[in-house]
Amino acid sequence: MMLEKVRVIQYGCGKMGMVSLRYLYEKGAEIVGAIDANPALIGKDIGEVAGLGVKLKIPVRSDAEQVFNETDADVCIIMTKSLMTDTLDAFELAARHGVNAITTCEEAFYPWTTSPEITNRLDRLAKEHNCTLTGSGYQDVFWGNLITTLAGATHNIVRIEGKSSYNVEHYGIALAEVHGAGLSLAEFDEKIASNNDLPSFMRNSNEWLCSQFGWTIKSQDQKLVPMTHDTDLYSETLGKTIPAGHATGMSAVVTTVTHQGPVIVSECIGKVYAEGEKDCNDWVIQGEPETLVKISNPATVELTCATVVNRIPDLIKAAPGFYTTEKMPTASYRTYPLHFYLNK
Amino acid sequence: MMLEKVRVIQYGCGKMGMVSLRYLYEKGAEIVGAIDANPALIGKDIGEVAGLGVKLKIPVRSDAEQVFNETDADVCIIMTKSLMTDTLDAFELAARHGVNAITTCEEAFYPWTTSPEITNRLDRLAKEHNCTLTGSGYQDVFWGNLITTLAGATHNIVRIEGKSSYNVEHYGIALAEVHGAGLSLAEFDEKIASNNDLPSFMRNSNEWLCSQFGWTIKSQDQKLVPMTHDTDLYSETLGKTIPAGHATGMSAVVTTVTHQGPVIVSECIGKVYAEGEKDCNDWVIQGEPETLVKISNPATVELTCATVVNRIPDLIKAAPGFYTTEKMPTASYRTYPLHFYLNK
Ligand SMILES: NC(=O)c1ccc[n+]([C@@H]2O[C@H](COP(=O)([O-])OP(=O)(O)OC[C@H]3O[C@@H](n4cnc5c(N)ncnc54)[C@H](OP(=O)(O)O)[C@@H]3O)[C@@H](O)[C@H]2O)c1
Repeated sequence: MMLEKVRVIQYGCGKMGMVSLRYLYEKGAEIVGAIDANPALIGKDIGEVAGLGVKLKIPVRSDAEQVFNETDADVCIIMTKSLMTDTLDAFELAARHGVNAITTCEEAFYPWTTSPEITNRLDRLAKEHNCTLTGSGYQDVFWGNLITTLAGATHNIVRIEGKSSYNVEHYGIALAEVHGAGLSLAEFDEKIASNNDLPSFMRNSNEWLCSQFGWTIKSQDQKLVPMTHDTDLYSETLGKTIPAGHATGMSAVVTTVTHQGPVIVSECIGKVYAEGEKDCNDWVIQGEPETLVKISNPATVELTCATVVNRIPDLIKAAPGFYTTEKMPTASYRTYPLHFYLNK
Repeated sequence: MMLEKVRVIQYGCGKMGMVSLRYLYEKGAEIVGAIDANPALIGKDIGEVAGLGVKLKIPVRSDAEQVFNETDADVCIIMTKSLMTDTLDAFELAARHGVNAITTCEEAFYPWTTSPEITNRLDRLAKEHNCTLTGSGYQDVFWGNLITTLAGATHNIVRIEGKSSYNVEHYGIALAEVHGAGLSLAEFDEKIASNNDLPSFMRNSNEWLCSQFGWTIKSQDQKLVPMTHDTDLYSETLGKTIPAGHATGMSAVVTTVTHQGPVIVSECIGKVYAEGEKDCNDWVIQGEPETLVKISNPATVELTCATVVNRIPDLIKAAPGFYTTEKMPTASYRTYPLHFYLNK
């Protein structure tokens, strides 16, 4: 009988987290805990944080370990930061408690080669505690499944080109920082462009595609270029004005050459938008035949959170370990409460 | 060990069939037989028909039953006609021989309610002979998986609208006629609009979507509307000029209302194109959030054949019976020969 709701801990209740909390609530999940380090959020009822119009008697707490000890969650959603080193603690905590975890941490989408040591350690830990860890979000559908779905109608792929742009103003400070928003060009060069340790989100996503297609990688090249604007631009996320000519964010172009022949060139632009600029997600598959897809003005915040919440049944059903989504079925829309997609 | 090639009979070697034959050959299938009724094709080597530059010593034959009796095929690809009544014989022949079959017959994409008797009979027969029958083609990805993939990033679907257009000039006179190309508006009304017996391709495809989402259908409505152009338009297929204001073809709009709330309105336009008009496939998912996708100028012939050939491993692995593709995994690109996607 499918009567037991999915029990979820929301780890990170910022801009993404508050949307995720509402989606979870509306899709019939039982929210059993909420964690955040931000003093402005600690103690607040999640019903308030998520704007539900009802109190759920679950306050945001900063003592993560305690939240895990005092609840019996099925799933933890981690929406804190963008790198594996930043989310390691949260993943480890979930895994040690046998709680499946899914994150919007962009690197976690396919972290096998950018953070192999951490990922393998987490994989081992998750297997020992019989739970699954994964990364998802916007890229799962728009840089991943959308492309593999169109590829399913393609006879011969020679090259894949993608371009995705989003407004860093829609997200928290973590994302703005890794995009170099607000830096002078000299600072950008020093902190971002020459720091090749910083994996562009598209690198992880190109590798996700290669893994899904069964391609092996011959070479990868990542170019980080600052984006600028010709007038001053106020950023609410940064809480300051970016002078004209300073970095408003960056374009990262990742070129992935495979041993099988196909080349993937994808560009990801994240910056503080000027008046009138819009998000885009345009891809072309070149080969036989050529197919061009355009998503106009995608609502990245909502799409990110909906994908993560829709992935919960896949996460619970997946094999234990760090199990990236290219090995899961395509993310599905959930018409009914999440637990109706499980057989338990 | 994955050493046994997939053995295929190509049933129908016309415009689609010849592309399918080439894709099969290039994806490492063993083509064991080819069937067609067209005297111009009978006896021709399929290597010639498919333009491979090599002869395969497999001639096109008209004696379908004999081809099935003299070969041991795994799969039959049926590319003959558009209705279940037209493909019934080929399906039955394949099923009686325990051969899995996949067709581009548009009605077969989801024939459960438009031809329930035939479909249930074939389902029963296929189960008795432990094989799978299905329909696929362009709509599998572009009116099906593309939409369900984007829905996977959606929190709440209120309405889905789709619009797909093709040029009747690319096909024969029969198709132009059933689309009312060349008729005056009064003639169109009499001969086309009032004939509601013919299921529009979009009806089967809306029902496929409903089945995939787990929605039940409250009402369906099909409207056939003439398309016109504001200047005279010469049609090569009709061999005459269509006067301004006369029908250049038609738009079929199918509205499907579900008991769960969401409404699907999809439009399929087939007409004689004016200068500069191109095929399109545009969809919008309305709800939270709204997502708009545009495929510009899709190469429908190649996309159709590639999807069918890429579906072969899914077909072989599927449960026996008439098993429509909304229950299968999303169609996948095949980098390697088809038999490498099977475990046998
Ligand atoms: N994959 C995708 O599609 C996608 C899409 C959007 C966003 N993201 C990523 O998702 C993450 C969250 O984005 P956001 O816009 O929601 O950011 P945000 O508004 O800054 O929210 C993050 C929240 O997590 C808290 N936090 C950070 N580290 C923590 C820790 N170690 N323990 C407890 N709480 C912690 C932050 O508190 P403090 O403010 O006190 O640090 C903040 O309240 C970012 O890394 C972003 O890049 C991914």
